[in-house]
Amino acid sequence: MTQADSATTHPEEYLRQHLQEIVELLHKQKLEEAILQQQKMPRHELVETLLHKQHQAAIKQKLDKLHSADIAYILEALPVEERLAVWNLVQSDLDGQILLDVSDAVRETLISDMDPEELLSATEQLDTDEIADLAPDLPEEVMQELLESLNDQSRRRLESVLAYEEDSVAALMDFSMVTIREDVTLGVVLRYLRRRGELPEHTDKLFVVDENDVLKGVLSLRRLVTHNPDKLVAEVMARDLVYFHLDDYAEDAARAFERYDLLSAPVVDHGHKLQGRVRVDAIVDFIRRKSDQQRLAEAGLLEEEDIFSGVWKSAKNRWFWLAINLVTAFASTRVIGVFEDTIVKIVALASLMPIVAGIGGNTGNQTSMLIVRSLALGLINSGNIKRLIIKELGIAVLNGLVWGSVLGLLAYGLYRNVDLGLVMAGATLLNLLVAAIMGLAIPLARDRLGLDPAVGTSVLLTAMTDGMGFFIFLGLATLFLY
Amino acid sequence: MTQADSATTHPEEYLRQHLQEIVELLHKQKLEEAILQQQKMPRHELVETLLHKQHQAAIKQKLDKLHSADIAYILEALPVEERLAVWNLVQSDLDGQILLDVSDAVRETLISDMDPEELLSATEQLDTDEIADLAPDLPEEVMQELLESLNDQSRRRLESVLAYEEDSVAALMDFSMVTIREDVTLGVVLRYLRRRGELPEHTDKLFVVDENDVLKGVLSLRRLVTHNPDKLVAEVMARDLVYFHLDDYAEDAARAFERYDLLSAPVVDHGHKLQGRVRVDAIVDFIRRKSDQQRLAEAGLLEEEDIFSGVWKSAKNRWFWLAINLVTAFASTRVIGVFEDTIVKIVALASLMPIVAGIGGNTGNQTSMLIVRSLALGLINSGNIKRLIIKELGIAVLNGLVWGSVLGLLAYGLYRNVDLGLVMAGATLLNLLVAAIMGLAIPLARDRLGLDPAVGTSVLLTAMTDGMGFFIFLGLATLFLY
Repeated sequence: MTQADSATTHPEEYLRQHLQEIVELLHKQKLEEAILQQQKMPRHELVETLLHKQHQAAIKQKLDKLHSADIAYILEALPVEERLAVWNLVQSDLDGQILLDVSDAVRETLISDMDPEELLSATEQLDTDEIADLAPDLPEEVMQELLESLNDQSRRRLESVLAYEEDSVAALMDFSMVTIREDVTLGVVLRYLRRRGELPEHTDKLFVVDENDVLKGVLSLRRLVTHNPDKLVAEVMARDLVYFHLDDYAEDAARAFERYDLLSAPVVDHGHKLQGRVRVDAIVDFIRRKSDQQRLAEAGLLEEEDIFSGVWKSAKNRWFWLAINLVTAFASTRVIGVFEDTIVKIVALASLMPIVAGIGGNTGNQTSMLIVRSLALGLINSGNIKRLIIKELGIAVLNGLVWGSVLGLLAYGLYRNVDLGLVMAGATLLNLLVAAIMGLAIPLARDRLGLDPAVGTSVLLTAMTDGMGFFIFLGLATLFLY
Repeated sequence: MTQADSATTHPEEYLRQHLQEIVELLHKQKLEEAILQQQKMPRHELVETLLHKQHQAAIKQKLDKLHSADIAYILEALPVEERLAVWNLVQSDLDGQILLDVSDAVRETLISDMDPEELLSATEQLDTDEIADLAPDLPEEVMQELLESLNDQSRRRLESVLAYEEDSVAALMDFSMVTIREDVTLGVVLRYLRRRGELPEHTDKLFVVDENDVLKGVLSLRRLVTHNPDKLVAEVMARDLVYFHLDDYAEDAARAFERYDLLSAPVVDHGHKLQGRVRVDAIVDFIRRKSDQQRLAEAGLLEEEDIFSGVWKSAKNRWFWLAINLVTAFASTRVIGVFEDTIVKIVALASLMPIVAGIGGNTGNQTSMLIVRSLALGLINSGNIKRLIIKELGIAVLNGLVWGSVLGLLAYGLYRNVDLGLVMAGATLLNLLVAAIMGLAIPLARDRLGLDPAVGTSVLLTAMTDGMGFFIFLGLATLFLY
């Protein structure tokens, strides 16, 4: 999995340096082409010049030394035009792997630059599980031809993987594994492996199955090389092992990999027949992707953006959450309109009300984040939920007394009005209670309804704490300040 | 790495079920003790009853079947009192491993329940790198005794690991690896491994070193078992490999593991001497921890909380960011105070101004999140930064025209005032430009200054977009509305 140069150097520096050199070559080429164009040389003659060809060759030489994942990184860091110039210089046998390695957004730009034949030859080199990963981005016609080019077993596998949800173990699975029988000796296994040659990537264990492909155990390479070759597989293999079903949640599998420090695990169907395996690198990608998705959603983005995508494309990625935020902001501020008479009389309220609303949002988000996390870790159950609620309300009261007093004193200090200070303090306390209740209720309700408690909770919560913050503060002011 | 029962069942369901059963046993015990206490039986006699002992035995029996990581999960899901009751029933030879597996907050509650001897015997069973992970939580006296109990090599290793930053490769490293020489045959290696017996966990490759411990290459078990035993290690080993230095950033190492799908990689000093190895499970933990820390910080929490910690303890975890948010909120709303005259005359401004401020915060966060991510991935460099800035400003103008018009029309619709609508539209456009500039400038500046661009960016940004939003909107209103 590593290549000549990534070898003897330090990968991150090395990569940045390569990127730098390629960028410089591209710029030099552009500059020289611009000069030639000024001398009225037409575009098609330009690409025929010796100079142009030398540059292309220099870039190609650099690329040929790189790992597919390194080229993917370089493509992502280049603006679209230069990206496609480099993409056309990549060795075509790496095309498929690079398409897998780049982000979804960048993949789109690369695929749109390829004609169906190129796509077909790039994807034909891939494993079934890798084709499944690319499937959503491939044009219908390419997918069709690809299916026809596969043998029966591969086609069946591909179709069955595509039938499962994206968040299931089946979507993370691959099929490249080595199976053995339990009634042979380790010596026989070793001879078989030597005859077989190269093992699939990341083979840390062999799967022991019976004649019906039912999983009996696993034999790790660690055990294979440390035990006497005369022993039987059945004596040395592990029978107690973590395995998954095709329809298990990928998230649960990721937790199990973390908990038991797994490198790979078998996947079986409900008849306990071996279907494939999940490797830790698929799990690492899954964890990274999942955490990226949540953070992007929290920041109000639908999906990962190609940083060089057009303005129009990026805007669409951002409008969904902006629209929702605007609707909720509009709704919560309509509360203020109801109290306009009060504000005209005591205009100080206008500058104090955003603070009451804001601190509610902040504390509510703290509570909801802990609840979301605890739900994800499976730490919340009917036995402890009451304690949790009592604890969060307790913190809200404590926070309300402390920060309510601080804000009350500040309001008094600014406007020399005791009643205004008291209203500020009381409203802060009450809004922190509202925030705690909402911070508990929203994620718990979303979880109960089978929705992802992480996404959207913050928007809903802020809308509630804003609206209630304005209402409580201005309401108390209307009641007590005149 | 797996145990009898986690074996033949589906890990997540299995775990929840075990937790449920243990909770039920604890509750039954409590109930019966309460009944006996009502009959005036004193506490110390209570724990001597047959019933009590039966319950303890039943819980212990359940625990004995579990993997240390499973017990860690159960301890985290239990309130402190019940957690300590279970903790005292755990087999003491698992204590050290469980301390490693629980979260920082829960570890604290467990350690505070142990006396120095217990702690010493729990930690003495651990590897040097594991002791280093626990070191910050151990009392000074235990740490001292522990250091004295180690042999020279282990003590030197421990001290050197502790000398490196927490975010360096050295902090993720472990020392359990197998080294071989390049001038022997694979057959000799196999015989050596069989004589040696059990290999360290997660051994996927052997490290080839010379007599000075200088790293020459690696021999994967995959190659060892597929090549002819007569071949020399030097012929079969990989010489081109990804390795790290002790002081490399852990984050860079994590990216390299993801990029090249590594399972383990050697760590060398600057003389290229082998120092240890990094395993993928340490990388998985690091990725999860890092992403958790960022999400907690974004929600305004200093660190992970034990969900059953006391109110007081939790409050302290939440006050730092609350205080900062309050200060910034207070500062940005002081802008409103300056325009109180305008608000008294046109009270509609009071309910519209939070919307202008809010949409600025939302769009600014979208921009800054993409910049933070691109910085983390190393995608931003001097060659493309200008394009990025132009793109984000372009989106801000587009968004400003679209959403400014929407908000302008809404304001007009509500108050039937054309000028008010125009001010609303203009202020929205301008504040979205401010938001884009700040969303670019804050993370880029923090990165340039060597600060983590992810943490604190959102608070600073919101303060700016709030303050500027109020200022622009109320300022335009003051200029144009009378």
